[in-house]
Amino acid sequence: MAEHNALLCPALDKVAGEEFLQKAFQIMLEEGVRKGMDASEKVCDWKEPEELQQILDLDLKDGGEPQERLLDRCRDVIRYSVKTCHPRFFNQLFSGLDPHALAGRLITEMLNTSQYTYEIAPVFVLMEEVVLKKLRELIGWEEGDGLFSPGGSISNMYAMNVARYHRFPDCKQKGNWAIPKLAVFTSQECHYSIQKGAAFLGIGTDNIYLVAVDEKGKMIPADLEKKINQAKSERAFPFFVNATCGTTVLGAFDPVAEIAEVCARHKIWLHVDAAWGGSALLSQRHRHLLNGVERADSVAWNPHKMLMTGLQCSAFLLRDNSGLLQRCHCAEATYLFQTDKFYNRAYDRGDQTIQCGRKVDCFKLWLMWKANGTRGLEQRVDRAFAMTRYLADEIKKREGFQLVIEPEFINLCFWYVPPSLRGKEGCTDYCLRLGKVAPMIKERMMKKGSMMVSYQPLGNRVNFFRQVVTNPAVTREDLDFFLDEIERLGRDL
Amino acid sequence: MAEHNALLCPALDKVAGEEFLQKAFQIMLEEGVRKGMDASEKVCDWKEPEELQQILDLDLKDGGEPQERLLDRCRDVIRYSVKTCHPRFFNQLFSGLDPHALAGRLITEMLNTSQYTYEIAPVFVLMEEVVLKKLRELIGWEEGDGLFSPGGSISNMYAMNVARYHRFPDCKQKGNWAIPKLAVFTSQECHYSIQKGAAFLGIGTDNIYLVAVDEKGKMIPADLEKKINQAKSERAFPFFVNATCGTTVLGAFDPVAEIAEVCARHKIWLHVDAAWGGSALLSQRHRHLLNGVERADSVAWNPHKMLMTGLQCSAFLLRDNSGLLQRCHCAEATYLFQTDKFYNRAYDRGDQTIQCGRKVDCFKLWLMWKANGTRGLEQRVDRAFAMTRYLADEIKKREGFQLVIEPEFINLCFWYVPPSLRGKEGCTDYCLRLGKVAPMIKERMMKKGSMMVSYQPLGNRVNFFRQVVTNPAVTREDLDFFLDEIERLGRDL
Ligand SMILES: Cc1ncc(COP(=O)(O)O)c(C=O)c1O
Ligand SMILES: Cc1ncc(COP(=O)(O)O)c(C=O)c1O
Repeated sequence: MAEHNALLCPALDKVAGEEFLQKAFQIMLEEGVRKGMDASEKVCDWKEPEELQQILDLDLKDGGEPQERLLDRCRDVIRYSVKTCHPRFFNQLFSGLDPHALAGRLITEMLNTSQYTYEIAPVFVLMEEVVLKKLRELIGWEEGDGLFSPGGSISNMYAMNVARYHRFPDCKQKGNWAIPKLAVFTSQECHYSIQKGAAFLGIGTDNIYLVAVDEKGKMIPADLEKKINQAKSERAFPFFVNATCGTTVLGAFDPVAEIAEVCARHKIWLHVDAAWGGSALLSQRHRHLLNGVERADSVAWNPHKMLMTGLQCSAFLLRDNSGLLQRCHCAEATYLFQTDKFYNRAYDRGDQTIQCGRKVDCFKLWLMWKANGTRGLEQRVDRAFAMTRYLADEIKKREGFQLVIEPEFINLCFWYVPPSLRGKEGCTDYCLRLGKVAPMIKERMMKKGSMMVSYQPLGNRVNFFRQVVTNPAVTREDLDFFLDEIERLGRDL
Repeated sequence: MAEHNALLCPALDKVAGEEFLQKAFQIMLEEGVRKGMDASEKVCDWKEPEELQQILDLDLKDGGEPQERLLDRCRDVIRYSVKTCHPRFFNQLFSGLDPHALAGRLITEMLNTSQYTYEIAPVFVLMEEVVLKKLRELIGWEEGDGLFSPGGSISNMYAMNVARYHRFPDCKQKGNWAIPKLAVFTSQECHYSIQKGAAFLGIGTDNIYLVAVDEKGKMIPADLEKKINQAKSERAFPFFVNATCGTTVLGAFDPVAEIAEVCARHKIWLHVDAAWGGSALLSQRHRHLLNGVERADSVAWNPHKMLMTGLQCSAFLLRDNSGLLQRCHCAEATYLFQTDKFYNRAYDRGDQTIQCGRKVDCFKLWLMWKANGTRGLEQRVDRAFAMTRYLADEIKKREGFQLVIEPEFINLCFWYVPPSLRGKEGCTDYCLRLGKVAPMIKERMMKKGSMMVSYQPLGNRVNFFRQVVTNPAVTREDLDFFLDEIERLGRDL
């Protein structure tokens, strides 16, 4: 029984482990947090994939490595990663670093548990409920249901599945073959997860009816009505309307109140994809953008975007309070959700999800909320609007900058027109040439490491920048730098 | 422009933020890691939900709270959470705390990026590829594809969706209505995510054919063949066989090689759910349990279970190398996956997933692998088998303990029969009474905080314990304690 004797000692060195954690944490603070938030450092030390592969020596080998080498590896990983907390990182719908949210994330990682049962996550089961309730209150619901999912895309899929089950409960057992062909309605500007969801759920992307938008990118309710009638005439069953509050590119808000009218008339489930724009609900000044959201049947809202909780934190919220979520998803596994538990089984919420193990995503948001209060979060939201307003005003003053649309939210969409193209709007190749400006400026800023902002074409608009600031550490100086740098990088194009 | 002037200063105090992080980290080490791993501390300070709600004061208010109060809150959250790193935590298929994996998680949280593009996650895009390649090599594939998903359940859903698309690519556009009714095959003992997946994907749980298992809980290939023929006769189209390697309760391995024969004969996609058992592939001694896995079309494997990376870390692996994953899931959003990027777009892998933002789940595994090497991980796997072997041997020596089955993997399933029931196997209420023993012992251990282990009924077997050890910090002393404690807690029942 030599093997049994080997079990006399632990095969993990706790002291060395703690020492490693201490050192790795200090590296993280120094190289990641402190340098990452320092405007004089690079946003990213850009390398081409082949070069980076060489530098990092990623291959996994038979033998282990000494602690010092591993710490160097941590340094390298941080060094060559993008600093999304940098004050000049404007590339994504998330940015910045909130210390309380990060502390919540670190402790979550250390505790390493799963949300499925009260037994295994007593604190977080209760906490998730409180946070979801707060989000529902901001929507305007006194009651309801919900959960945190791994992202807005999956939250949107939950909505589609619950809506399908609500109308055709048989589908869960019998599949789509037993129910009429379904039709989904969403605007042309919606997030691509609606498409991915329709494909994944066996509904099919052809059964999505794309509703037209106005010049601001908002869904036109009259066209929704038209598309619903068209679907009916095509023998499809309209079951799901998705209204986007805060579209990904333009930041447009579909007119939810009017859409709700149409849905009520046709008895269709109304889902609001507020993954991006939901956080405007925190602001007394700006929450009107989501007017009517309380009439939705379900809402997706990602605190990991505007609220800076860190990935992943997406709430799927439901107005239903009858246990629809549970009925729709339950599988009643007796190895996990035992019926003879010694505590109240109602606290075991895991069977209402499509997951089994589910990461704890509520604590980071909760701790940040406790630290700032609702008012502190409101101020951040208002500040983000003010930053966008400031930049939009500056853009109007500067030659060569042109807004794509007046921002209603915090997506700042604009073209930079270099001197060589100014006044040439009439030329046949103007659009073609303008469309090449943003990618070239982007390449230059990446290689320089000075900042990051994204660009994209949209419909018949050629490539334009979409700049987003959610990070409260950003100042006017960073915003001025942003515009100056675009000019510096692009004026010779 | 008072509002614009407010932007002159950052609205985030970096110095205070760093100080908070330092303090929160030290609390985490002290209260979570050090005490959490200490066998003399409680696994969990159990409170009933109502009481815990009182203690924690979870409500979110308008105002923020001072730093000291927030640190107390962190202490409380840790205190009342279950210590899954405790050497007497045997409740879940995950446990323990690997310091390198945790360091990787902390740095991942700090960097807070998303896996979708090379631009935003250069290091992690490359790293994910390397880690997936290593896992595929262990399966026995020279080539292939894959991604990390938020869990084994979602990995299994990926498999089902890719299999469906592979056979009926039209389904993506046209939905299930355009294709024949599909049939899924899986054993009675499979994980419930197969059921959840069939419902979510619009296939329906009635279209799952449950294949019979032998007395060890392994799928019977002859019955699979029978069920396939039955489905065909019922005009269902057999498209997907799920073989489980490491069932959730018994730890049984379906005979993959034989199942692969059946699948080949009928041209059906073979998926192996090795979420639990996949890590046995690291062991030269035990990898035979998965013989034939290289013939699978796809595999789900969760390093967050046996390998201790921490939640969430689930690999979905595909043998296909033709871009099936991409074709199946792509939506070609031009705001994210621009076609005119300055670097090689092949590195932007995000469009092959059903997600948009996707958490970085590879770094924790990679760093742990670099620290231990493949051999170090192999030793851990072998140790877990040895611990189970030790306990099974002890159980045979002890009166009142009875194995449910001889463990093949590291699920140790057994009954504890208290003295009052010994020799009463013939009594009519024996099973009824025995079924109440495990829940009562569980309640007692929870309230005492001495350890945690799960129990469940299975088929016609009444409640039995399922004990699992993956944590290398566990010693023989902990294992002896485990059996002694069961006796102490249960002998009067
Ligand atoms: C409007 C909208 N909905 C949904 C999503 C998807 O959210 P996630 O990235 O968390 O999946 C996004 C992401 O940008 C979005 O902009
Ligand atoms: C065999 C098996 N497959 C899949 C899963 C699901 O994995 P996850 O919890 O990561 O969703 C489990 C979870 O216990 C499992 O045991």
